[in-house]
Amino acid sequence: MKATQGDPGSRYHTSEGAMNEFSFIDSIKPFQNLSCRVIKGIGDDAAVLELDAKRYQLLTTDMLVEGVHFLSNTPAKLVGHKALACNISDIAAMGGIPTFAVVSIGIPTGTGHIEFSHRVKGQENSMCPDYVSGTYKGIFACAKRFGVSIVGGDTVKADKLVINIALLGEVEKKNLVLRSGAKPGDHLFVSGPLGGTLKSGKHLNFTPRVKEARFLIEQFKPSAMMDISDGLAGDLGHILNASRVGAEIDEQRLPLNKGVSVDEALHGGEDFELLFSLSSPKSAKLVEYLRSHRCGHFVEIGRIIALPKKLYLCDGSGRRREIEPKGYTHF
Amino acid sequence: MKATQGDPGSRYHTSEGAMNEFSFIDSIKPFQNLSCRVIKGIGDDAAVLELDAKRYQLLTTDMLVEGVHFLSNTPAKLVGHKALACNISDIAAMGGIPTFAVVSIGIPTGTGHIEFSHRVKGQENSMCPDYVSGTYKGIFACAKRFGVSIVGGDTVKADKLVINIALLGEVEKKNLVLRSGAKPGDHLFVSGPLGGTLKSGKHLNFTPRVKEARFLIEQFKPSAMMDISDGLAGDLGHILNASRVGAEIDEQRLPLNKGVSVDEALHGGEDFELLFSLSSPKSAKLVEYLRSHRCGHFVEIGRIIALPKKLYLCDGSGRRREIEPKGYTHF
Repeated sequence: MKATQGDPGSRYHTSEGAMNEFSFIDSIKPFQNLSCRVIKGIGDDAAVLELDAKRYQLLTTDMLVEGVHFLSNTPAKLVGHKALACNISDIAAMGGIPTFAVVSIGIPTGTGHIEFSHRVKGQENSMCPDYVSGTYKGIFACAKRFGVSIVGGDTVKADKLVINIALLGEVEKKNLVLRSGAKPGDHLFVSGPLGGTLKSGKHLNFTPRVKEARFLIEQFKPSAMMDISDGLAGDLGHILNASRVGAEIDEQRLPLNKGVSVDEALHGGEDFELLFSLSSPKSAKLVEYLRSHRCGHFVEIGRIIALPKKLYLCDGSGRRREIEPKGYTHF
Repeated sequence: MKATQGDPGSRYHTSEGAMNEFSFIDSIKPFQNLSCRVIKGIGDDAAVLELDAKRYQLLTTDMLVEGVHFLSNTPAKLVGHKALACNISDIAAMGGIPTFAVVSIGIPTGTGHIEFSHRVKGQENSMCPDYVSGTYKGIFACAKRFGVSIVGGDTVKADKLVINIALLGEVEKKNLVLRSGAKPGDHLFVSGPLGGTLKSGKHLNFTPRVKEARFLIEQFKPSAMMDISDGLAGDLGHILNASRVGAEIDEQRLPLNKGVSVDEALHGGEDFELLFSLSSPKSAKLVEYLRSHRCGHFVEIGRIIALPKKLYLCDGSGRRREIEPKGYTHF
């Protein structure tokens, strides 16, 4: 998931960016020794592991840091919700169902810096126990809603509140969707309006698209899918990379949140909507379904083309201009 | 795992302590909705989940924070080693074999505080890429040694270096060992000398006792087992609580690291040795094995008694004094 700047108005920096900058993956590849039970390791929304004859296990993790992913005045329950929901979104993006989670929390307890409001009076560099237990309540409420069991965790001291959740999930082997399956001619869809989520607060209280993803894999079998957590252009870039294809986005079809520009929708951030591709016949079937059910859950936004890694934005008159298939890099 | 103070000479504070203080577990229990596939949730070294007819899956997580669990001058590879090894130790303590892990890293990148030495010159509040990739190298070297596949992770911005690893493992159903099985009359053992690990550096470069644990469960089937990460007295307290028994420790039998007092061994910290109980016949068998193989891997240190939660220290003359079955609470 993306690391968003604490100031909701400021620019973003992506996990991907951090990895590129430090060349982590390159520097550690020689050390890696993957089990043959790893179907997909680093490089998708979640890891895919052999489970039994019919199912894969999924595993993902996300870290949220106070001042980076949420602010001092963010309600604690929303922080907890976000910490689990962004993991659930990763499992959904693989077509899976979330199952078990472990929660690590680093809590400010007396050292560090007096910057935030949720502190114990007279001990301004400690965090108020109510805030911490509010965070847990948010996590557990989200867990209950999505059928996740919290089965363990770790509680440590830190300078600022840090929450890390690791989440397991499962998917039927026939239903697994990766980023790497998009084909030229496929149609591109998103599951809802994009952009402005930091301003609107949707980045905190979004609903992970588990139901929508399950509906899609059972009825339409997307060729590629992921959740949008680093901005449409950046995340579409991951699909294009993994699938070795390009894409055209129709500017006028992009569903935008109120008051959001196309640029903000492309390079915004934590929408947590699904981005997926469908073969032409399945796309026609979905469009017909949406029409006949008067349903606006999924919006067609463009198509996959053969040119590897090329991303174009098409205006209403048929002109297209190339855009960078990347999220903003901050590191 | 325990959160140790950054200053190697200072006192410790335990995760358990934090939880007590904030009453986290109590405050969130009403929100919990455990799947019937959860055999053991919060409250052991790792969660135990139904996997298939013969095996359970294990899941654990640990968070390390710069300035709390390691220092600015701690070699990066050791930090990485510790981050994974303390998770492996948890899996070993259940009798399991570690399998797959996800790694989250929060990296200082420009905001925050100039306190540490591993910073980019001219950008003293950023962390040197070499240090971060050194940390990864430590993680991957440890992963290779113990057959763990790193299958994903998250990289975000933070004020100080934070590493969270979540680790899966597996154990044959017949081999699972919990904290809750100790019975009066059982004998207590540890897998090695205790105390002084912060001074000696063992808390950074310890070897998780996977081999030793597997040997024990296959040959001697301990009635209860855990790893010592919060000091012998505190961790034995967990076994006594979970098993509703008490214990006597023979002061003179306690294996001590060089220059370490009994008190330091009892209330020290991150030994990462195994603490386990054996029935009387199995204990005799292990003692005979150790004698005949001239092997000092396991040391008998006392016995389980019927008095719930009572912990006594016995001196050479048969006198005993009660001690608190608790680690130091810092929160």
